[in-house]
Amino acid sequence: MRNIKITIAYNGTGFLGWQIQKPRQRTVQGEIEKALKKIFKKKTKLIGSGRTDRGTHALGQVANFQTSSRMSPLQIQKALNTLLTDDIVIIKVESVSAQFHAQFSAHSKIYRYSLYTKKVRPILERPLIYHHPYPLHLPLMQKEAQCLLGEHDFRSFMAADHAQRHQLSLKGKKDTTRFISRLEIKKKGALITIDIEANGFLYKMVRNIVGTLLEVGTGKILPGRLKEILQAKDRSLAAETAPAQGLCLLKVIYLN
Amino acid sequence: MRNIKITIAYNGTGFLGWQIQKPRQRTVQGEIEKALKKIFKKKTKLIGSGRTDRGTHALGQVANFQTSSRMSPLQIQKALNTLLTDDIVIIKVESVSAQFHAQFSAHSKIYRYSLYTKKVRPILERPLIYHHPYPLHLPLMQKEAQCLLGEHDFRSFMAADHAQRHQLSLKGKKDTTRFISRLEIKKKGALITIDIEANGFLYKMVRNIVGTLLEVGTGKILPGRLKEILQAKDRSLAAETAPAQGLCLLKVIYLN
Repeated sequence: MRNIKITIAYNGTGFLGWQIQKPRQRTVQGEIEKALKKIFKKKTKLIGSGRTDRGTHALGQVANFQTSSRMSPLQIQKALNTLLTDDIVIIKVESVSAQFHAQFSAHSKIYRYSLYTKKVRPILERPLIYHHPYPLHLPLMQKEAQCLLGEHDFRSFMAADHAQRHQLSLKGKKDTTRFISRLEIKKKGALITIDIEANGFLYKMVRNIVGTLLEVGTGKILPGRLKEILQAKDRSLAAETAPAQGLCLLKVIYLN
Repeated sequence: MRNIKITIAYNGTGFLGWQIQKPRQRTVQGEIEKALKKIFKKKTKLIGSGRTDRGTHALGQVANFQTSSRMSPLQIQKALNTLLTDDIVIIKVESVSAQFHAQFSAHSKIYRYSLYTKKVRPILERPLIYHHPYPLHLPLMQKEAQCLLGEHDFRSFMAADHAQRHQLSLKGKKDTTRFISRLEIKKKGALITIDIEANGFLYKMVRNIVGTLLEVGTGKILPGRLKEILQAKDRSLAAETAPAQGLCLLKVIYLN
């Protein structure tokens, strides 16, 4: 058996997220497994680096599967891209060692949240960015966000109603401690991007951090309060979850 | 009566173009007139700077209409944006002099054609750019395109089957002579943009020029041939029309 790693981009608008849940619901994993079944004439189980939520996009999602087929990586890529719909594309296909596991081998992930801040709604970028038509104090957001860097218990930013899902994050960790190695907030015209790199993310952690940072930016959450929220380990203190449409899984990083 | 100028952005994907043709077909003009009728409680005729084709986008389309309403420009803008669907937005509303006419007062227009050149299809940009997965020789395209600058008879780049429509272009000109004041081809990563500014455009002129420039870029049309095609004034010589989805009306320029 060969172990095949694939890198995937998708527009999340038309999917109920990455992971197959019920039959006949359209998910990214479901669509790719359907295509693999057609190509290899047998059920092929796809292992993703982790789920992405309903409506969340990806430019660099990674998954792997086992196959006894002798097709070259390029042939597999072409066959998949021919079978898949226009809102998914396989960017890369590689033969990897038997040890490679898209979820457990992941070293870190980078998510990008994209915001559009003009008063009138965006047209050509819709629905891939979140329209937040209120002024944001960026230097304050950047300064306050510093307290999130490093290793912390991020329980305050975990989805309240899905606490049981947090064990699905990277490394199989069952606790709520993660390490954020980078958090960058940048502005280019009316577009603001918030990039977060961590060794793993709790369920809805990025969107909960972004939702809270937005309230820091509008002044609803006062300076110093973000650190208190983090330290309280209490989800009820953080702000509302930012919408999925602004979120994109940019990259999953594997060492070696 | 007041004369109101509006600046409009739209994602052309869901429209049969700008201009109302048959009832119940979804056009940008039709949607805005429907909203104006609701706001002013009477039929209000909208004059556009010109049509855009089915599937073509706009970031700066301009139109004007007459009204006896005392609503402020800001109130009109808010009312329109509330009534319109998410794929149209009114960017600006201004009171202008009675002489202003969106079509006849236009000094020039800028169109942008956007191409994506990577082998695999684009995901997050789709369907707002045209996927052209073949290498293009940009310096050659830039050099050859120079012959299009200035005043020429652009009959070779007018839609063959719609020759009768050319009188709908700016200035009410009935001939096929136009003045291209700028033609810029730029590359940023996998994205190529072709900007064309002219005092008016024949029907499908931008898309026919782009289609021909693409064949210059792939080598199918040899150096020197573009100039011959222009001079021949024969539509059958130019290349295929580039798809509408890559085209965007960036700006309509009015002096004063």
